[in-house]
Amino acid sequence: MTREELVAEIQHKKSFLCVGLDPDFDKIPEEYKTFEDPLFEFNKAVIDATKDFAVAYKPNLAFYECHGAKGIASLQKTLEYIPKNIFTIADAKRGDIGNTSKMYAEAYFKTMGFSSITLSPYMGSDSILPYLDYPNKWVIILAATSNAGAQDFQFIKTENNCHVFEDVLKISSQYGNDSNTMYVLGATRPEILKQARAVVPNHFFLVPGVGAQGGSLEDVYNAGANSEVGLLVNSSRGIIFPKSDLPHKEACRQAANKMQLEMAALLG
Amino acid sequence: MTREELVAEIQHKKSFLCVGLDPDFDKIPEEYKTFEDPLFEFNKAVIDATKDFAVAYKPNLAFYECHGAKGIASLQKTLEYIPKNIFTIADAKRGDIGNTSKMYAEAYFKTMGFSSITLSPYMGSDSILPYLDYPNKWVIILAATSNAGAQDFQFIKTENNCHVFEDVLKISSQYGNDSNTMYVLGATRPEILKQARAVVPNHFFLVPGVGAQGGSLEDVYNAGANSEVGLLVNSSRGIIFPKSDLPHKEACRQAANKMQLEMAALLG
Repeated sequence: MTREELVAEIQHKKSFLCVGLDPDFDKIPEEYKTFEDPLFEFNKAVIDATKDFAVAYKPNLAFYECHGAKGIASLQKTLEYIPKNIFTIADAKRGDIGNTSKMYAEAYFKTMGFSSITLSPYMGSDSILPYLDYPNKWVIILAATSNAGAQDFQFIKTENNCHVFEDVLKISSQYGNDSNTMYVLGATRPEILKQARAVVPNHFFLVPGVGAQGGSLEDVYNAGANSEVGLLVNSSRGIIFPKSDLPHKEACRQAANKMQLEMAALLG
Repeated sequence: MTREELVAEIQHKKSFLCVGLDPDFDKIPEEYKTFEDPLFEFNKAVIDATKDFAVAYKPNLAFYECHGAKGIASLQKTLEYIPKNIFTIADAKRGDIGNTSKMYAEAYFKTMGFSSITLSPYMGSDSILPYLDYPNKWVIILAATSNAGAQDFQFIKTENNCHVFEDVLKISSQYGNDSNTMYVLGATRPEILKQARAVVPNHFFLVPGVGAQGGSLEDVYNAGANSEVGLLVNSSRGIIFPKSDLPHKEACRQAANKMQLEMAALLG
């Protein structure tokens, strides 16, 4: 998907919502477990309920890999089911030497057909570049994440008096451009989003951590939006496992609609 | 597998050889492609040919994931085929928030039954700790890798005048201990192995980059060995795709035997 197509979808839906498809088996409602492929049936219901409000879906691969080959088959079916106008993110956080990265790119862009993949920057340029050979596909590089452990290495002060994550932004933004590279920036510390915007004004940010992890949508928007919105805000548990008395599918729809309305208000 | 069992296997076989099971489909000899599961049949032949000389096998997951669910099934069969006295490494380079790491730990330690998994440190403590809940399982954390891109972030100078990879060693060695944590250190720069040894004298190092990538076994041993050997040296292409006129399986056996003999000589 091109940047223009993604921005158009955001404008059309008045939404920058990404729904995390993390089908934690222990939390999936019993009604889906009677099917032969509960993971897929659960995802199908979530997609049906939220596709009017979401501009992106982000399956986290751990929730599929933990079921072995069967889980990967569920993921393939899920990918095929997602409408083609919606951006897809393989939340894989891969990162390996060049010939291995080539294989991962093939796995997620060709075999599976994702629009994008999340990557860890730790191994540097040749762990990212092979993905950029695919036209209209995207890499989404971890910069500053929303978890407690982020502090350990991403915020190490460098000899130039900036943080490691700022060097990640500066250096890795040279690998590609703002039409094939995005960054993961956590929602829990909006001041960090602002700091990142100063380094990469035009790139899209994928922002997890709103909802279950405690970040506020308005704070994220004010700190991170740019002239083309430049944000995909992810919600997983808050939408796919909503706390509600409604039937599951209806509750998902309501939760996604609520976030989309908040986003529409911010977009003005 | 416990540290004692691993060290005993090294002493018994006079070898610290890890064989990388990276079945690049384009390079697999035609003789295996007539089978229903060429990846597994290729791996089975390599395992049969090298199990007397190897103390570890390291499948790189990219080479399985690129075949979708079918590739994961081949990986599962491969894991079941590896003799139980041999250490197994899921070369996955994962790294994600706590609840996701729990899922990956389940995938690779429980569903698949690996002895260990390689992890990227970028997301810090909670991306590593859930794996350490499994007794006698290991995490193998990227420190300084053998690829060109390693320079981009691992070697950033910090305000304390050391490199990021040294901070990774210092901080992450506190998450667990030398009986459940190893480090990836590339073979191509032995002086870096020495520098790492100064920070973590007792931990095992997994060392890729000997052979195809250009590192020398003797230099690695002299720079990185400790009193309990403390090394697993990986060779992938050099052993599984040997340049030889012999039949493939025999050529693999010869290549592994040659490395084992060199290792035996170093072990004295």
